[in-house]
Amino acid sequence: MTDAASLIADLGRRARTAAVSLAGLPTRAKAAGLVAAAAALRADEAAILAANARDVAEGAARGLSGAMLDRLRLDPARVAAMAAGVEAVAALPDPVGQVIDTSMRPNGLALSRVRVPIGVIGIVYDSRPNVTADAAALCVMAGNAAILRGGSEAAHSNAAIHGAMARGFAAAGLPGDAAQLVPTTDRAAVGAMLAADGVIDLIIPRGGKSLVARVQAEARVPVLAHLDGINHIYVDASADDAMARAIVLDAKLRRTGVCGAMETLLIDRGFADAAGLIAALRDAGCVVRGDGRAQALVPGLDAASDADWDTEYLDAIAAVAIVDGLEGAIAHIAAHGSHHTDAIVAEDAGVAERFLAAVDSAIVLWNASTQFADGGEFGLGAEIGIATGRLHARGPVALEGLTTYKWIGRGTGQVRG
Amino acid sequence: MTDAASLIADLGRRARTAAVSLAGLPTRAKAAGLVAAAAALRADEAAILAANARDVAEGAARGLSGAMLDRLRLDPARVAAMAAGVEAVAALPDPVGQVIDTSMRPNGLALSRVRVPIGVIGIVYDSRPNVTADAAALCVMAGNAAILRGGSEAAHSNAAIHGAMARGFAAAGLPGDAAQLVPTTDRAAVGAMLAADGVIDLIIPRGGKSLVARVQAEARVPVLAHLDGINHIYVDASADDAMARAIVLDAKLRRTGVCGAMETLLIDRGFADAAGLIAALRDAGCVVRGDGRAQALVPGLDAASDADWDTEYLDAIAAVAIVDGLEGAIAHIAAHGSHHTDAIVAEDAGVAERFLAAVDSAIVLWNASTQFADGGEFGLGAEIGIATGRLHARGPVALEGLTTYKWIGRGTGQVRG
Repeated sequence: MTDAASLIADLGRRARTAAVSLAGLPTRAKAAGLVAAAAALRADEAAILAANARDVAEGAARGLSGAMLDRLRLDPARVAAMAAGVEAVAALPDPVGQVIDTSMRPNGLALSRVRVPIGVIGIVYDSRPNVTADAAALCVMAGNAAILRGGSEAAHSNAAIHGAMARGFAAAGLPGDAAQLVPTTDRAAVGAMLAADGVIDLIIPRGGKSLVARVQAEARVPVLAHLDGINHIYVDASADDAMARAIVLDAKLRRTGVCGAMETLLIDRGFADAAGLIAALRDAGCVVRGDGRAQALVPGLDAASDADWDTEYLDAIAAVAIVDGLEGAIAHIAAHGSHHTDAIVAEDAGVAERFLAAVDSAIVLWNASTQFADGGEFGLGAEIGIATGRLHARGPVALEGLTTYKWIGRGTGQVRG
Repeated sequence: MTDAASLIADLGRRARTAAVSLAGLPTRAKAAGLVAAAAALRADEAAILAANARDVAEGAARGLSGAMLDRLRLDPARVAAMAAGVEAVAALPDPVGQVIDTSMRPNGLALSRVRVPIGVIGIVYDSRPNVTADAAALCVMAGNAAILRGGSEAAHSNAAIHGAMARGFAAAGLPGDAAQLVPTTDRAAVGAMLAADGVIDLIIPRGGKSLVARVQAEARVPVLAHLDGINHIYVDASADDAMARAIVLDAKLRRTGVCGAMETLLIDRGFADAAGLIAALRDAGCVVRGDGRAQALVPGLDAASDADWDTEYLDAIAAVAIVDGLEGAIAHIAAHGSHHTDAIVAEDAGVAERFLAAVDSAIVLWNASTQFADGGEFGLGAEIGIATGRLHARGPVALEGLTTYKWIGRGTGQVRG
């Protein structure tokens, strides 16, 4: 066993013991732990900011980009938001113990399915130190032990945040290993986590595409993640012009770097305001690349290449295709989508319902912006991420997605005979 | 790409097209397909039995064991049971389209989570030809396309059964590729299925431990399975003597080869009838291997070795340990269990509820035989298997476990802004 593997095996054993304790705790005990952790984050603000300043200085010296430094940087408002986020999770309904369904068998055996924690959850993330607090809070509130592996560029910040969280948990009587931070930035530790089948029950990567791709390619442990958000909006012939403009501009430009941003706009050839809609996007500062039919409608429009239809820009760039009605849109999304979030703008309810049924994505929306793809916006109170796989949880994942269930049967001496 | 990989890629493309059609079909269309398939199985009885006779003759000539030949062998009653099983699945409630929950966001966005099929499901199985019919029926009824890969020793039987099912599906208008049989017994095809991430959405192995272990070790596609059923019964000091005997004898000996059979008996040191319970097992023909304390209670009892506590006998053999009450039983199960099915016999409801909460298995039972671990007994109407993993579905898996969900949001022009 390599050093990294034996490190993760040891963290895993401690996590399993903590998970067994956490699984049996009532909601109020877990919530008290999170409230105490939030208080510790606030109390440690100066230490967290000092640790963060060290990371930022080292990152700047190593030539990290401005965007990476911005993701890394904390300030008093960000620490306060982190603490408030942990408290918000403490106030969420606890899925553990929820009865999914019950039945009474003809032989008198009373069956129920009851939500239980998953167990040990590994979080692999990049330079955003707030994930240390967010992920620990969500995992622990759902009764799981967390093993946290943040980016090396945030090592001091993560250690300070984790230290505060752990002190808060301990003060409220939660197990000391409820959330452990992997105490090395050696990349081999990530490989050992991904290989730790049976030790870690679920891996959730949080970060850029290269991180998620590595995790998905290497992991022997189940993974909950999304790789791409190549999200489409289809504007039907029946769409209201003003609503189409408002939704498309919001979906593309409100924040271009989020996974719920629209990347491709599909316009029904019967939609009369196509040229106006494309012009509105361009006027708002978006680079638009069109297929031949879009170029014919809007003189001077750049041409989209084949690669554009499969690109997540995460920038103020949109690809636009004119399609032959609903079926053309569905076929385009089936060929190029990433099963994240796709939307239709239409006044015709029959067309909209066919779109919602036929488009095979985690989230499908009618007359709403794709930027609603978010656990908070969906009323989950928070999210550990958005999943585009087909098993377990899909779309925004929060506390419920961090649980599984067991079957409980209560009998009076029943035998199969 | 190897020949096997390109074969599976081709089957996968056809399956995906079929899955898109199946996902949109109403319940009655899928049920009609299954009813027609059952009729075709009955109509083809002679051809199926002739194909099976060929497999049995070839298997006997190759020296297959009696147990394997028995799993392989069909007769008119088994063909009739296969057809009846397919009809039973046709009559089950359809999970597709079920609304899991709904919410109205403050901004007026109406959200719901709706069950949808998983997509393309690969079934890898051994010598039991009835799996061809069972698995195809369950996958298709839940709106999925199936890719079936049976054991080479049942190749003629599987082809005949698949031919009948496919003819029935086609007669009722289901897609021709709703259930495809891999047209080769080349073992490389299994490897190609296990590697077909993105082509096959879920692999379900059906068969012996070596098959399941291979699938779990190699698969890049998510797997739903159980490897072992090392199931425990804990007899508490408060247990009723007669109930304990009836449950333990049923759990161990009703059928010793099923995954729900008890393998280890844990007896509270405070249970007065321990010697009588062990004697009852031995009198019923079970070999009993005890720990030191059990040997002290029952003179002449064979000694259990360390390996016994981790062995799934699937035979008339039981390991027995005397434990220190509930906590001793919970610790033993945590150390040696396989998260399949574990039971307590107790009159003390408080002790029983602590057991049900603390034992981390897919199925936990109070005062009932572990042999109830079965989709039919749980009221699911059928089962595609029992899962002991922690994600997606746990315990007996039937139609609901063969679905996932999507989020549907219906708005009136909402933007995040």
